[in-house]
Amino acid sequence: MNATNLYEFTRRVFLAIGCPEAEAAQAATVLVQADLRGVDSHGVARLAGYVRLYDNGRLNPAPQVRVVHETPSTAVVDGDRGLGLVVGPKAMQLAIEKARVAGTGWVAVRNSNHFGIAGYHTMLALEHDMIGMAMTNAAPLVAPTFSLQKMLGTNPIAVAVPALTEPPFVADFATTAVAYGKLEILQRKGEAAPLGWAQGPDGGPTNDANAVRNGGALLPLGSDREHGSHKGYALGSIVDIFSGVLSGANYGPWVPPFATAGFMAAQEGVGEGTGHFFGAMRVDAFRPAEEFKLHMDKWIQAFRQARAVEGRQVLIPGDPEREMEQLRGAEGIPLIEPVQQSLRELAERFGIDYPTT
Amino acid sequence: MNATNLYEFTRRVFLAIGCPEAEAAQAATVLVQADLRGVDSHGVARLAGYVRLYDNGRLNPAPQVRVVHETPSTAVVDGDRGLGLVVGPKAMQLAIEKARVAGTGWVAVRNSNHFGIAGYHTMLALEHDMIGMAMTNAAPLVAPTFSLQKMLGTNPIAVAVPALTEPPFVADFATTAVAYGKLEILQRKGEAAPLGWAQGPDGGPTNDANAVRNGGALLPLGSDREHGSHKGYALGSIVDIFSGVLSGANYGPWVPPFATAGFMAAQEGVGEGTGHFFGAMRVDAFRPAEEFKLHMDKWIQAFRQARAVEGRQVLIPGDPEREMEQLRGAEGIPLIEPVQQSLRELAERFGIDYPTT
Repeated sequence: MNATNLYEFTRRVFLAIGCPEAEAAQAATVLVQADLRGVDSHGVARLAGYVRLYDNGRLNPAPQVRVVHETPSTAVVDGDRGLGLVVGPKAMQLAIEKARVAGTGWVAVRNSNHFGIAGYHTMLALEHDMIGMAMTNAAPLVAPTFSLQKMLGTNPIAVAVPALTEPPFVADFATTAVAYGKLEILQRKGEAAPLGWAQGPDGGPTNDANAVRNGGALLPLGSDREHGSHKGYALGSIVDIFSGVLSGANYGPWVPPFATAGFMAAQEGVGEGTGHFFGAMRVDAFRPAEEFKLHMDKWIQAFRQARAVEGRQVLIPGDPEREMEQLRGAEGIPLIEPVQQSLRELAERFGIDYPTT
Repeated sequence: MNATNLYEFTRRVFLAIGCPEAEAAQAATVLVQADLRGVDSHGVARLAGYVRLYDNGRLNPAPQVRVVHETPSTAVVDGDRGLGLVVGPKAMQLAIEKARVAGTGWVAVRNSNHFGIAGYHTMLALEHDMIGMAMTNAAPLVAPTFSLQKMLGTNPIAVAVPALTEPPFVADFATTAVAYGKLEILQRKGEAAPLGWAQGPDGGPTNDANAVRNGGALLPLGSDREHGSHKGYALGSIVDIFSGVLSGANYGPWVPPFATAGFMAAQEGVGEGTGHFFGAMRVDAFRPAEEFKLHMDKWIQAFRQARAVEGRQVLIPGDPEREMEQLRGAEGIPLIEPVQQSLRELAERFGIDYPTT
């Protein structure tokens, strides 16, 4: 589907549930950006989920997002149960403003919901010659090393760094061996999963693509103790502590599920909603921006030109997503049938035309 | 060996190469702390290496460490070719001072050398009710995903978070599947390495514990593409960019080798020495410190009590090192024969008594 048509449709759905004009546009931008960049699991495939959050009374479509505490370089933002897709960019903007004055800005967010792709938020910093950072906690799917219980979400980290003539460095990754969406693809196909993606109910290795729903758990980056799963567990924990404990949101096993994941039940809360953490660092708070960006070009070129495995090239974080964005911007966004079906249902419910192209 | 005796010996070696009193004590503290915490690869095993750095003219034993640029929440420090063991704590102290005023402090360091265990530096923040962060780049041992060339060091990340009645959360880990020291142990024993630790000269899987010296490379956390090596590569890159590019140090393939690793040859430089990056965040820049620490207790207790694999317990980052510190503080530090030999040679060279216990 044409990206502009998909954006317009998505925007109208957010308007239909009561989002103000600017916020509906912002939310639609973040979602369609995910589809454009090839992160299909975080795009319009989740639109019906956000609407279900609204139906369940967990989403405030017109939140009063407010700063509840601040210092020159920090703030805590209460998202008032708003869309993370809207609360996120507001908090990132505040981090950027703090950085303008104090050199860096760090904003912890509580009482929010799923914020879409972390990379989107970090990239807002780039035009200001700042490094952007974003992370979020999420409902528990992941077992720490030696645990049988799911205690952490996929807790992604994103970092965007500006360059001069090269495109920016944009890393955006879950702190797990694999994104849960990759297991969902195998579930739909009825195929087995590689060892090292999930553990079974006994904590042992499994090929079962359904293991996470059947008493097992997703594995931290590193997969097993011998290959450093305790490092992935530590990373996911850091994201959880920065996003949840610093902000006053829920954390660990208490993070509430995103609407679509009905098999995850939230325990009694220890804070408010989901938590995020954003950072912005002015590069000229360290060295002249032009000089920094020139060295980033040199860094990027050195890595891209490294001798590679036959038939492969060393990629810079952000390369695959940027190429996908160019391709899908030109040729449109492919939507699998279940996603189209969910969008058609929303079209019917809200009386919005479903785009034909 | 008794930790106090080992400390005193180490301190006298640093004095012998010309370190001022306070700096010799600081450097010895960091090294012996590594041995106490069980990170043998970063303790006095490296003392002869630091002396060799001095012999080679790469180490300034009495550096003028200075701030070359700053904003309210940031600074760049030039280490004047000093010991990272000394420059590191100074830079961390500056980050703490910045945080006291601005809420957070972020200090990038150039023109330094190996700074010992990253965790030591982060833990300096704890007594101030701050979260401490430290990272450093290092000479290239690691191949990015699809690369045949070593482009990154083991580039560790450490984060320390204070709790109330629980001991602090202290994560400290290389962004690789395994520490290089673990391969060195297998090399000494003549044993094979598990798949997923290193790659061979063709970029393929290998059991060769000597692969890194023989045209292969250490693998990023995640081990292979299917298990998320591109995430470990991105993490190691972020550490390199923050430590090297922000500070004006060398980065990527240009980071100079630590003295003991003669098989790694530095290319022509793109900056000055090795780079580090430190951060301190006042927890009460986000929420009242007591409240934050109470929730950290709750976080730690929830994770420690998670249902675990038969015969195991879920550990909190920092648990194993703290237990080792108690044990070795009481029973002494075991030193393998090659390390004892290197210390005896230093004792002879500098006319220092080698401790008998």
